[in-house]
Amino acid sequence: MRTGIWLVGARGSVAVTSIVGALAVRASLADPVGCVTELPPLRHPALPALSDLVFGGHDVSCVSLVKKAHALVAAGVLPAAVVAAVADELAGVEADVRHAPDGATQHDTVARIAADLADFRERHGLARVVVVNVSSTEAIPPDHPAYADAAALAAALHHEPVLPPSSRYAYAAFTAGCAYVDFTPSTGARLPALDQLAARHGVPYAGSDGKTGETLLKSVLAPMFAMRNLHVRSWSGTNLLGGGDGATLARPEANAAKVASKQRVLRETLGYEPEGHTRIDYVPDIGDLKTAWDLITFSGFLGSRMRLEFTWHGCDSALAAPLVLDLARLTAAAHAQGLSGPLPQLAFFFKDPIGDVPHGLAEQWRDLCEWVQGWGVPTTPAGPAEPSGQPS
Amino acid sequence: MRTGIWLVGARGSVAVTSIVGALAVRASLADPVGCVTELPPLRHPALPALSDLVFGGHDVSCVSLVKKAHALVAAGVLPAAVVAAVADELAGVEADVRHAPDGATQHDTVARIAADLADFRERHGLARVVVVNVSSTEAIPPDHPAYADAAALAAALHHEPVLPPSSRYAYAAFTAGCAYVDFTPSTGARLPALDQLAARHGVPYAGSDGKTGETLLKSVLAPMFAMRNLHVRSWSGTNLLGGGDGATLARPEANAAKVASKQRVLRETLGYEPEGHTRIDYVPDIGDLKTAWDLITFSGFLGSRMRLEFTWHGCDSALAAPLVLDLARLTAAAHAQGLSGPLPQLAFFFKDPIGDVPHGLAEQWRDLCEWVQGWGVPTTPAGPAEPSGQPS
Amino acid sequence: MRTGIWLVGARGSVAVTSIVGALAVRASLADPVGCVTELPPLRHPALPALSDLVFGGHDVSCVSLVKKAHALVAAGVLPAAVVAAVADELAGVEADVRHAPDGATQHDTVARIAADLADFRERHGLARVVVVNVSSTEAIPPDHPAYADAAALAAALHHEPVLPPSSRYAYAAFTAGCAYVDFTPSTGARLPALDQLAARHGVPYAGSDGKTGETLLKSVLAPMFAMRNLHVRSWSGTNLLGGGDGATLARPEANAAKVASKQRVLRETLGYEPEGHTRIDYVPDIGDLKTAWDLITFSGFLGSRMRLEFTWHGCDSALAAPLVLDLARLTAAAHAQGLSGPLPQLAFFFKDPIGDVPHGLAEQWRDLCEWVQGWGVPTTPAGPAEPSGQPS
Amino acid sequence: MRTGIWLVGARGSVAVTSIVGALAVRASLADPVGCVTELPPLRHPALPALSDLVFGGHDVSCVSLVKKAHALVAAGVLPAAVVAAVADELAGVEADVRHAPDGATQHDTVARIAADLADFRERHGLARVVVVNVSSTEAIPPDHPAYADAAALAAALHHEPVLPPSSRYAYAAFTAGCAYVDFTPSTGARLPALDQLAARHGVPYAGSDGKTGETLLKSVLAPMFAMRNLHVRSWSGTNLLGGGDGATLARPEANAAKVASKQRVLRETLGYEPEGHTRIDYVPDIGDLKTAWDLITFSGFLGSRMRLEFTWHGCDSALAAPLVLDLARLTAAAHAQGLSGPLPQLAFFFKDPIGDVPHGLAEQWRDLCEWVQGWGVPTTPAGPAEPSGQPS
Ligand SMILES: NC(=O)c1ccc[n+]([C@@H]2O[C@H](COP(=O)([O-])OP(=O)(O)OC[C@H]3O[C@@H](n4cnc5c(N)ncnc54)[C@H](O)[C@@H]3O)[C@@H](O)[C@H]2O)c1
Ligand SMILES: NC(=O)c1ccc[n+]([C@@H]2O[C@H](COP(=O)([O-])OP(=O)(O)OC[C@H]3O[C@@H](n4cnc5c(N)ncnc54)[C@H](O)[C@@H]3O)[C@@H](O)[C@H]2O)c1
Ligand SMILES: NC(=O)c1ccc[n+]([C@@H]2O[C@H](COP(=O)([O-])OP(=O)(O)OC[C@H]3O[C@@H](n4cnc5c(N)ncnc54)[C@H](O)[C@@H]3O)[C@@H](O)[C@H]2O)c1
Ligand SMILES: NC(=O)c1ccc[n+]([C@@H]2O[C@H](COP(=O)([O-])OP(=O)(O)OC[C@H]3O[C@@H](n4cnc5c(N)ncnc54)[C@H](O)[C@@H]3O)[C@@H](O)[C@H]2O)c1
Ligand code: NA
Ligand code: NA
Repeated sequence: MRTGIWLVGARGSVAVTSIVGALAVRASLADPVGCVTELPPLRHPALPALSDLVFGGHDVSCVSLVKKAHALVAAGVLPAAVVAAVADELAGVEADVRHAPDGATQHDTVARIAADLADFRERHGLARVVVVNVSSTEAIPPDHPAYADAAALAAALHHEPVLPPSSRYAYAAFTAGCAYVDFTPSTGARLPALDQLAARHGVPYAGSDGKTGETLLKSVLAPMFAMRNLHVRSWSGTNLLGGGDGATLARPEANAAKVASKQRVLRETLGYEPEGHTRIDYVPDIGDLKTAWDLITFSGFLGSRMRLEFTWHGCDSALAAPLVLDLARLTAAAHAQGLSGPLPQLAFFFKDPIGDVPHGLAEQWRDLCEWVQGWGVPTTPAGPAEPSGQPS
Repeated sequence: MRTGIWLVGARGSVAVTSIVGALAVRASLADPVGCVTELPPLRHPALPALSDLVFGGHDVSCVSLVKKAHALVAAGVLPAAVVAAVADELAGVEADVRHAPDGATQHDTVARIAADLADFRERHGLARVVVVNVSSTEAIPPDHPAYADAAALAAALHHEPVLPPSSRYAYAAFTAGCAYVDFTPSTGARLPALDQLAARHGVPYAGSDGKTGETLLKSVLAPMFAMRNLHVRSWSGTNLLGGGDGATLARPEANAAKVASKQRVLRETLGYEPEGHTRIDYVPDIGDLKTAWDLITFSGFLGSRMRLEFTWHGCDSALAAPLVLDLARLTAAAHAQGLSGPLPQLAFFFKDPIGDVPHGLAEQWRDLCEWVQGWGVPTTPAGPAEPSGQPS
Repeated sequence: MRTGIWLVGARGSVAVTSIVGALAVRASLADPVGCVTELPPLRHPALPALSDLVFGGHDVSCVSLVKKAHALVAAGVLPAAVVAAVADELAGVEADVRHAPDGATQHDTVARIAADLADFRERHGLARVVVVNVSSTEAIPPDHPAYADAAALAAALHHEPVLPPSSRYAYAAFTAGCAYVDFTPSTGARLPALDQLAARHGVPYAGSDGKTGETLLKSVLAPMFAMRNLHVRSWSGTNLLGGGDGATLARPEANAAKVASKQRVLRETLGYEPEGHTRIDYVPDIGDLKTAWDLITFSGFLGSRMRLEFTWHGCDSALAAPLVLDLARLTAAAHAQGLSGPLPQLAFFFKDPIGDVPHGLAEQWRDLCEWVQGWGVPTTPAGPAEPSGQPS
Repeated sequence: MRTGIWLVGARGSVAVTSIVGALAVRASLADPVGCVTELPPLRHPALPALSDLVFGGHDVSCVSLVKKAHALVAAGVLPAAVVAAVADELAGVEADVRHAPDGATQHDTVARIAADLADFRERHGLARVVVVNVSSTEAIPPDHPAYADAAALAAALHHEPVLPPSSRYAYAAFTAGCAYVDFTPSTGARLPALDQLAARHGVPYAGSDGKTGETLLKSVLAPMFAMRNLHVRSWSGTNLLGGGDGATLARPEANAAKVASKQRVLRETLGYEPEGHTRIDYVPDIGDLKTAWDLITFSGFLGSRMRLEFTWHGCDSALAAPLVLDLARLTAAAHAQGLSGPLPQLAFFFKDPIGDVPHGLAEQWRDLCEWVQGWGVPTTPAGPAEPSGQPS
């Protein structure tokens, strides 16, 4: 059951960490720490093995994967020895990374993306391909009438720059029969027209915005306050980050998309929105080791005033990469099971999950486990297929 | 369904905050913030109403309840206006607070405690009484052969100081037909002989050690690391606290009991014990607004090293008091339902829960909700009974 | 040597805390904690005694001083007992608080302010008056040609709204022969034209922006890094504050003035400007107990990367008020000594000091001490003058 | 003016970091960040150049310098490239590192240490040698009558194990005409008998306990509270550290010596001792990147309660090593100037300085600068002497 994972933003930090990590685990150079599909309750024969994953992708950057990997070594994200050990294989993936197509019309662009996907699937004899968006965060586009209807959208693509990049990739994925996962807060597949398209093509999709740092903490701490009937008065957060993602998020529009995505969990788990703001600041020196500081003021019995403060020093790419692999494996298995449309069962992974789902991490975890445990066992064994090409 | 709540350590901070709070909520002077039995999923007709609770207790101190309440105002725990408003009723409770009996033998002591409990139940015409231990933390006693067997223990009480205070209260509670809750890390009912006694008298018991601060956070954060397959390398904690409890815990023996109780959640939810220690330091100036600082070092994908640090400024008594009320209500209802022996369903409330239970807060919460939701509805309405005496 | 202290913004938090505090210390209800002029190296017979200070001021608000004092009790800034004890005297000050004049032209406004000052001095038989600006932070005004020259400015006042409020008060103070202190980051006396005016009238002035929280810490921590030859790579700060000042600073223009004032100390003590930003966020629930969090990344020997992080929970008005009293006493004494123009020796008190002064706190302290210790002893004793009116 | 620096504990983290660092700076592979003698106010022709320093030492360990350097690379203290570049020179220093002598009597031991020092000086044609103790922290020895008098001590050395190791090295240094610096909290030269010996031999000495982390911060923050007349109520500190030093300090006796040394600055700068404790905990995973967390509670005007909390993540060896080089250079220059006995002017560097000195960092800095600036200029130029052996 060889499975393709097509990374939009394949030359970025998260993508390269995902590829290097998969190659390292496969070669027994590292344990799959951080991969939740390796935990006993989620191990399932329907999941493609890590060694079954074949990598490809699009990017607008031209920096080679190996060069980016070395930059991630210098930044303290990847260990030098691991990168050295997988450098040859990593260079091999290069053949499957294409420059992001840019056609005369969006219709052309989408068609060329879809052609790249089909070509990738065929060349490697893949059972299926999951497109995972790990490219730069976009601004939220203004609403457009064509967003409401697949036919209108198909027409608009011919003469208008109607879709933001993330949605063009989702469009292409669906028409090529590929599942789509949005690991960013960008629009991606979250337009009614694209939902119709996914249904029509019988492919699943998931998103949005991988939950790795401050929001992960919010998703366990906010439920704690709720379960204890304590009143959260304010929740203020400061995120300091360098790296490519930091530079992008310093642009006000992208920042707005990210911040909205981050605050949702409070409203959803507490049932009200406390005072306070979440800020994202770009501090190049912080590099990839992001620092988040949050102050929560709350009140308890008889009005007593209390505080919780935390500082999180997390390596964003190292937190994100194993989840990217998990999402690809789970979404591919769901696709194989015949599921299509949104996958709310994957809420565990996202800051801004699709659907009317719980926002507490523990409930999301339980839903995820129950979902996977309810899957049938595939009739053809999911063991390692005959290797051919890339994952040599 | 008037229900007695008998507080061992009735003149302490937690006890007085519980009584003042119940009186204040009853008089609509305050909302029951922090009381989890007031949350929709736990509201149940089988629970005695807050206005049905009648307070009494034992203490070795002679400071009046009103004087202690004023000290708690000065310490910033209780609001002056609330204490002023309930001072008369609080003084009324005084009649039901007895000096802790101290007989010639432990047999005598236990008999006199049991007599005080029976007398309290009769004078107020109570359906049942729950004894809640909120007295000072004791050292862990050395093991004793009589702990294994109720008959041996009954014999030993005649000629040996075999039981620590908390266990004498549990013994007396059971023989008087009362339920027993241990909110402290002391031994309490957790001896095989006492378990036999509870079974024989058909009464339930619960414990140990109310989960209010650092351990509450551990019970959501440790599962977060586990669910995300991140490896916790070290977890170090410092607790600075003043107040009566702080002074007691500064004594090495009591400190040891508390620290053991605090670390259990890590072992249980992670499946291994990370490096690091938990310290408790007595700093009088900190008063009742305890400060806990924890540093967690963990590693993720490809060995990346990360850190989480938190500071908790919590008012211990204000966090504990509503849980004391919750526990009394839930244990009384369980008793009314005919349950006896340990109540593992109450693990949500404790640092060191009884039985083979989950240690993650979210799972404990779910178990608690399912348990309560499975209760039958009492045939006689749980509404306010005819008032007689104290809760005028 | 009865001395007037005229507070611009007399009904604000800092002003009312200053007045209540002076009355309380005078009545031996409180120690002068936080007053640096009470420390041995700064005690000097030339300083007016706290009991020699007579209070008055302007404000645009109509909330009575006593009412504001009660609000500060509710906010946890002032102790209820102290406010109760000085309430009558505080009400007595009311007679000397005037509504901020607003004339047809700025010339008129300034004249009316000056008349209020002269009237205050005469009615109370004051040796001299120090005007202290503790009103809301203003935006930085665009430059204007009249700022460069006193004569041009005098002319412009007749037909243009040329001066921001803080500078109108400084203008009036100088023409009335009063010293002026700017405790805010507003423009105040810091225009060449006003400097000429101060010189002409022979009065001293000081500023700007009282150094009470994050910047106070910066003024000892940045020199520490410099003295140890450690390289500060980034310094990021988040300030969360409620209260009246917080609401004002949430307005972008005022925020900009404040932030510029806060960062200066880094540039001046380190000799370079590290990466990072200072943010101010308005969180009403935080109230007057401001929280600042700073993250400093630095490197040492052989490029080792290190971090310092601090959280400051400070009561802004309680930190500011004793400094307001200190500044009034020191500036009055300087005036009495015949000094005029800027007082760089007061840099110790300010975020944005005037002149080419050291920015490390310890050097500022030494300069201040040496300055005061070099003063002559006044020939007429500085003991309590004949009381008349207000400070009964 | 080639100068020897003899490191007691030459194979430890601080020693090896010092040697590697000096070699790296000399070879222009690194800037002397963290070396305060490279700051303009302390540059002086009387100081031996970094390139004039010749390294040797004693240790009880047999791990080679190069091997230890690689361990420090793995621990993130030293950069791999620097260690690779200086590895040959580092191996060259090996010839000057001797196993710590252990004679039949302490008299013998001391004589053999002195002989090693004299031999080192002669072989390398050194102007003088400074012995710097960077070996493991010892317990404080019980008092002994021979400590009071040099003659009694000389006699006792023949038949009693009277001196702890650090003091044996100080004894040997003095008799060999070498200056002695104690970078640890051990006893070292701080016995009256040893002070007499230093005077007799005309050599200077300095100590104790390098001030690198939490205490460095205390030495700027405690004066800040004092200068602002704020009352520090409690100061509690937790130090988490791994590494060799951490393991030693986990032993209660050594811990006690260190903690006493750390608290002194509060008593000295505040004039009173606040509540609270300093704890040191050994957490191997923390490695050499020590974490200190301090909570300071203080009160201001009218009793307002405030808090400061900081977390310091410092690389201990990287903070210590440049100071070791500074101390060797300054002490050698003092020796060359004919100074003998204690050097209180070096208080800037120590947690527990000798003599009646200021404890605020800024005053210590000023005293240090004034001292150095008062030195005469050496008549023979301090330029590079004829190289011979080691620093090739
Ligand atoms: N790292 C985390 O913890 C985390 C968590 C949640 C979400 N995310 C999201 O993941 C995304 C990637 O993060 P990163 O740190 O790898 O950022 P990055 O800047 O290192 O990588 C983004 C990559 O996308 C490429 N790209 C930009 N526009 C493109 C386009 N139109 N088509 C194809 N490629 C394009 C860029 O060239 C770059 O190589 C971001 O949007 C971020 O918000 C990351
Ligand atoms: N406050 C919390 O958040 C919290 C959480 C978990 C557990 N606890 C536990 O609750 C207990 C009470 O805490 P507190 O802050 O109220 O302490 P406290 O010191 O204010 O009160 C304890 C009371 O127990 C009384 N007492 C002591 N020995 C007794 C005996 N033999 N019989 C009867 N009374 C006796 C004391 O006189 C005192 O009045 C402690 O054991 C503490 O460890 C508290
Ligand atoms: N509290 C501190 O630690 C601190 C430190 C440095 C500077 N400051 C500055 O001190 C000032 C006062 O702070 P606060 O907390 O008392 O604020 P506040 O909002 O409580 O008080 C400001 C007062 O000024 C009055 N005012 C506004 N415009 C006026 C005008 N044109 N004429 C006369 N009065 C006017 C307002 O009505 C109000 O009563 C602020 O500018 C603040 O930035 C305070
Ligand atoms: N690193 C800092 O920031 C700092 C600050 C102040 C003080 N110190 C002190 O510096 C000392 C060294 O710290 P470290 O981190 O290098 O420790 P370390 O454990 O790495 O090194 C100590 C060395 O001393 C050697 N040693 C032990 N006993 C000896 C003896 N009798 N004779 C000769 N050598 C002996 C050990 O074998 C070891 O090689 C410690 O005492 C520490 O307390 C360090
Ligand atoms: Na903190
Ligand atoms: Na912190």
